[in-house]
Amino acid sequence: MADTTERTAGNTRTVREMVDAGHAMERDEGKDLIASDRVEGTAVYRPDGEKIGRIHHFMVGKRNGRVEYAVLSFGGFLGMGAEHRPVPWEALDYDTGLGGYVVSADEDVLKASPTIDPADRLAWDRAFATQIYGYWGVPY
Amino acid sequence: MADTTERTAGNTRTVREMVDAGHAMERDEGKDLIASDRVEGTAVYRPDGEKIGRIHHFMVGKRNGRVEYAVLSFGGFLGMGAEHRPVPWEALDYDTGLGGYVVSADEDVLKASPTIDPADRLAWDRAFATQIYGYWGVPY
Repeated sequence: MADTTERTAGNTRTVREMVDAGHAMERDEGKDLIASDRVEGTAVYRPDGEKIGRIHHFMVGKRNGRVEYAVLSFGGFLGMGAEHRPVPWEALDYDTGLGGYVVSADEDVLKASPTIDPADRLAWDRAFATQIYGYWGVPY
Repeated sequence: MADTTERTAGNTRTVREMVDAGHAMERDEGKDLIASDRVEGTAVYRPDGEKIGRIHHFMVGKRNGRVEYAVLSFGGFLGMGAEHRPVPWEALDYDTGLGGYVVSADEDVLKASPTIDPADRLAWDRAFATQIYGYWGVPY
């Protein structure tokens, strides 16, 4: 933390000092944030630990800053022929032991889930997100 | 949209058909989602259109799926010597004309804002986010 400083005129203190100085009530929650570029590429597993794919990227509301859904990639070789399936963020559980996300849905639900064309990024508006949430049975 | 299909037993229809079939009330909002890997690397401007940096990545709540803040990179060469500054998502406005995000804060506020060590990803917990929001005057 030594290099992490808040620079104000005549006053430099580390971020850790800032944190220690206040808002102690928040500290119990620990490190519950994750970097966007660490989510991308993270493995996705079945509950039994079988690795089935990866998170390719995820979609964010420009205004509300809410993660709407992740796009999972399954199979393929060097990105060719891979299937992309959008899955609501709430349907993914991060497992620290596996070091990846777990999809608990039944396999037939996963296999029948909507796919998207990896090249088509224009369709990912809110109406589409509503449909995806509906399929997965997650309140939108 | 032709390749974007929902695959269920004996029933294939395009996502566009799914969208057209329902939730018309949501459609007015248009394309208000953005892909995580398109946010990363997007330019950041001053309100007068001066380009000042880029979004390096952003931080997401693992459980609540909320974008907490973006990490902006300023200056540097090939990533060396660049300054990283965390800025709440709410303090960034996407400008379709500029094709990037605008920071409207006064320049001295931006220059005095907290910096973080690009190599230190461990400090980015919720307590830190609270401090960042406090500096920027955005309700957390």
